[in-house]
Amino acid sequence: MEITQETLDSLKYDASGLIPAVVVDDETGDVLMVAYMNKDSLADTVKTGKTHFWSRSRQQYWMKGESSGNTQEVQSIYIDCDVDTLVVKVTPAGAACHNGYRSCFYRKLNDAGEFEVVDTPLFDPDEVYGKK
Amino acid sequence: MEITQETLDSLKYDASGLIPAVVVDDETGDVLMVAYMNKDSLADTVKTGKTHFWSRSRQQYWMKGESSGNTQEVQSIYIDCDVDTLVVKVTPAGAACHNGYRSCFYRKLNDAGEFEVVDTPLFDPDEVYGKK
Repeated sequence: MEITQETLDSLKYDASGLIPAVVVDDETGDVLMVAYMNKDSLADTVKTGKTHFWSRSRQQYWMKGESSGNTQEVQSIYIDCDVDTLVVKVTPAGAACHNGYRSCFYRKLNDAGEFEVVDTPLFDPDEVYGKK
Repeated sequence: MEITQETLDSLKYDASGLIPAVVVDDETGDVLMVAYMNKDSLADTVKTGKTHFWSRSRQQYWMKGESSGNTQEVQSIYIDCDVDTLVVKVTPAGAACHNGYRSCFYRKLNDAGEFEVVDTPLFDPDEVYGKK
């Protein structure tokens, strides 16, 4: 895949130079995660075919799966009407969530008005990220 | 549907008091739009069963469909691991995009490295929003 410099420059980045990316499972259509890209990470995502982001909490450039091995192979990229949000369709190698779940959206609002876990983790994060 | 005040208060809002919401078509799984909610609009979304947002560009509270009639009936709401992003699954009444498309993500990165329109609009926005 490729992206022209003109296209990269035409997108609307926020004051920190970031654009949110909704990462979707290409096969199931499930939303896996929402993370932020800067111009470099978007360019690398396109060039390498693996998702790259900018972590706002860690203030760090990262490739999804660099610690866990759970990379995401990019299938297609979409932009919205306001050119300020991306949808990236991927084939995930394992879980998207650092808590071990397939998707970061594993909690659903229940009848009691609280968010409740509705999925089962694929792995134990303490083992994968070496905290044990 | 309901949401407790404690749950509302437990979410992570940004410096402007907003949380991004990924709106997904409950039937097809397609990402329709990404917009921002404040605590009030999330509460009203749950209470009324119709999506409500805060417009950053217009600095205005709005119900999706208040101008166009293209409301979104809420089916379920999910929160992510970091409690800073929502996924809202809806049954849409018509197009989500103010440009007349079913989804705001109607442009896909093509082989030339440019975003290309890959969908057909459902309506003429000039007619719906009364610019004609």
